[in-house]
Amino acid sequence: MAKFLTNREENYAQWYNDLVIKANLAENSAVRGCMVIKPYGYAIWENIQAQLDKMFKATGHVNAYFPLFIPKSFFSKEAAHVEGFAKECAVVTHYRLKNDENGKGIVVDPTAKLEEELIIRPTSETIIWNSYKNWIQSYRDLPILINQWANVVRWEMRTRLFLRTSEFLWQEGHTAHATREEAVEETERMINVYADFAEKYMALPVIKGYKSENERFAGAIDTYTIEALMQDGKALQAGTSHFLGQNFAKAFEVQFADKTGKLDYVWATSWGLSTRMVGALIMAHADNRGLILPPRLAPLQVIIIPIYKTAEQLENISLKVKDIKTDLEREGISVNYDDKENNKPGWKFADYELKGVPVRIALGPRDLENSTLEIARRDTLEKETIPINNVTAYVKNLLEDIQANIYSKALKFRSDNTFYANKWSEFLEIIDNQGGFIMAHWDGTSETEEKIKEETKATIRCIPFDSQDEDGFCIFSGKPSKRRVLFARSY
Amino acid sequence: MAKFLTNREENYAQWYNDLVIKANLAENSAVRGCMVIKPYGYAIWENIQAQLDKMFKATGHVNAYFPLFIPKSFFSKEAAHVEGFAKECAVVTHYRLKNDENGKGIVVDPTAKLEEELIIRPTSETIIWNSYKNWIQSYRDLPILINQWANVVRWEMRTRLFLRTSEFLWQEGHTAHATREEAVEETERMINVYADFAEKYMALPVIKGYKSENERFAGAIDTYTIEALMQDGKALQAGTSHFLGQNFAKAFEVQFADKTGKLDYVWATSWGLSTRMVGALIMAHADNRGLILPPRLAPLQVIIIPIYKTAEQLENISLKVKDIKTDLEREGISVNYDDKENNKPGWKFADYELKGVPVRIALGPRDLENSTLEIARRDTLEKETIPINNVTAYVKNLLEDIQANIYSKALKFRSDNTFYANKWSEFLEIIDNQGGFIMAHWDGTSETEEKIKEETKATIRCIPFDSQDEDGFCIFSGKPSKRRVLFARSY
Repeated sequence: MAKFLTNREENYAQWYNDLVIKANLAENSAVRGCMVIKPYGYAIWENIQAQLDKMFKATGHVNAYFPLFIPKSFFSKEAAHVEGFAKECAVVTHYRLKNDENGKGIVVDPTAKLEEELIIRPTSETIIWNSYKNWIQSYRDLPILINQWANVVRWEMRTRLFLRTSEFLWQEGHTAHATREEAVEETERMINVYADFAEKYMALPVIKGYKSENERFAGAIDTYTIEALMQDGKALQAGTSHFLGQNFAKAFEVQFADKTGKLDYVWATSWGLSTRMVGALIMAHADNRGLILPPRLAPLQVIIIPIYKTAEQLENISLKVKDIKTDLEREGISVNYDDKENNKPGWKFADYELKGVPVRIALGPRDLENSTLEIARRDTLEKETIPINNVTAYVKNLLEDIQANIYSKALKFRSDNTFYANKWSEFLEIIDNQGGFIMAHWDGTSETEEKIKEETKATIRCIPFDSQDEDGFCIFSGKPSKRRVLFARSY
Repeated sequence: MAKFLTNREENYAQWYNDLVIKANLAENSAVRGCMVIKPYGYAIWENIQAQLDKMFKATGHVNAYFPLFIPKSFFSKEAAHVEGFAKECAVVTHYRLKNDENGKGIVVDPTAKLEEELIIRPTSETIIWNSYKNWIQSYRDLPILINQWANVVRWEMRTRLFLRTSEFLWQEGHTAHATREEAVEETERMINVYADFAEKYMALPVIKGYKSENERFAGAIDTYTIEALMQDGKALQAGTSHFLGQNFAKAFEVQFADKTGKLDYVWATSWGLSTRMVGALIMAHADNRGLILPPRLAPLQVIIIPIYKTAEQLENISLKVKDIKTDLEREGISVNYDDKENNKPGWKFADYELKGVPVRIALGPRDLENSTLEIARRDTLEKETIPINNVTAYVKNLLEDIQANIYSKALKFRSDNTFYANKWSEFLEIIDNQGGFIMAHWDGTSETEEKIKEETKATIRCIPFDSQDEDGFCIFSGKPSKRRVLFARSY
């Protein structure tokens, strides 16, 4: 229950963890760094999947599935790629167990050693481009627009439920194109899809931009990102789209003949979004009572709770609720009626607040007499009594209103916590005392970025697409700069 | 194209493999035994998933996600279970790669050895029951009705696309109950869901029954199965549902307090169905021209192909097709219009036959004049010319008719290939010359079953739920028997 949540203002990290556990979203498993995604958490992910999948298909993509395993040698083919992922790989070396001859139980059978070790995919560029090699001969075979829903493994040392886990679920798009322009266009298209999804469904305002070289995907020419601000003033990278140039085509020898018969390497993109988004949903919107879920992704949009003393009262209420529920469901709204007898209404109220159900309807005997009901919204906690016969239209509007309001609130929070720093002392002051986004000039070098990170733990989240040309001086080195970039500490 | 398919009657195995490759369903990857499921094959799996997921939710189940990795020690806790799976496990032993000091490229970092090896899940009973342990205290926490969509790995030595691959996709249900009766009921419910799915969606008649002890799931008290007959006379196990008794609850110490406070071990079931079903779909229905997909699972139900000589003709046809397509789509029918200019109609006809698209519509200039179109069904290859204004109703009925006809055909094939053997010589004759299902008496012992398998490669596919009491003598040992069981060679 909510009263067991740590106060968000006192210990944000503990509040987050409490909430994930108490709202039954996920828990740690017996395997280091791997989580169990519980049904309520998974239902949110299913809604995220369903919506994204629609958006991918509407932009011409199809789904496919590639192996979990990547031969070690594939990894080494793209130098930057292996550099980026080799240090956090789960490696399969054997394919059999056996009973120990000395009675020590089950052991790995040393005679069943693989000739070449297999890496559990941390991302699938290499195994996929090794397949594309056989699929692409001519420009007629292009573009290839494929997405994969899959689990991936990155052996993280410090993990947090949803935000950073050794195994996580995600989608990864991998596209192949005949021209540089087309691939760049695809990279942009997909970061826009992610931004749309974040803003319209997650109610999460994001800043689109380029990653600096330091923060780019291992093997990419360019990485586009969407960055969101969490309630503790830290940034969260919510989705990335990579322009891979011809790097993977060269590593895997993927060439195509253009219309004139001339051979060239294929151009590539990849883009991904993961179960980390469930963490973002919590960190961006939830409060000390629990989750606040945007209606468009909430597994349950409306909960109805009866208030009664006698069995007869319950019966009358239940009869009325049946109609209300049918009407709401006809509008595509998901509704539950919680008439379980072992918990009191107050307990139920708190429980559904914890779970972030957007709308709560309560009905008692007096409501039945007056043909009214009480309706409460989770985001503002406001209550209102309305006529029963008006409930469907009211709830429909209310859900829209809650969706919009959660977004506005997050947007206001971001505006209030976006700062323009012009001096290093200002920068330090903001980072240490307030957190948030800092727009500041940067001299464009990796060295400066590294030093700022060492001193403040802040990194360049992105170079915003829409940041204006503006002459200035690097916040750290004082060298000339042409535009501001976005700094923050981040998850 | 179809002409490249091996003849089904000459070499069934090669025909199957050709078809999977040529119809772009899947291909072997660079990783031993692991396949790439290509977009067209994956689209069939997506339809299977969508329908099953609906059926699972309609029977009260929710989805969740458990880790890919299973600690080796978990495996050993249920003796029969480890015995069944230990010999075909992918084992993770290390979590890092590094640059070799002697310049041999990327190698496994020996200092990054796991304290306890991790097994890639071949099935998830152990990791799931280790979680359930913390979820279940009282009867109020029961039942737990969870399903998981996931990839699993069984290190198979001889693999075939879809039918047997080292990695495959599946769903696995894992339920927990307070009583034996409730668990048995769940086991039955789910085998019925599978049978319904197979018959109504896959158009695949199945025989429901119990597995003999030899063929039971490792760790189950009872395994229910649905068995289908393929066109080469071999059986294919299409889905299984296991009553696990209290075996896993005991192995993982999962007890609950009943209403009186008495502690007891929890009762369990598990049930699974995999991408193997895509293989079954092919083997049961396809012919020498290619796939024959049941309309309810076909990624594309209707293809429209223009027949034209001039650009003006194409334009007129395209105009008309636009309306037809809109009307069909309004009825929820999936339709494509293939007006690509690089291929001739004959080539397209063969290509969509290869892909098993249930209905083909062709429209030429004369059709426009007469307000007709030509409609062809993939299952019987029959063509008919019908009035354009009748097309929507016609196609709707036709799709239903094709679905029913594919099922009837498969059912007739099964009847024609189900034999009752009463003597061992008969049994041998049928198995060697015709294949198919053989109903025969069996003395109930594992020894006899083993011997029959050694001599004929036939196994007991199941003891059918509906097989009648009938006194007889075991086909092999001559000992008394009370009912017939179902024998076949199988995939």
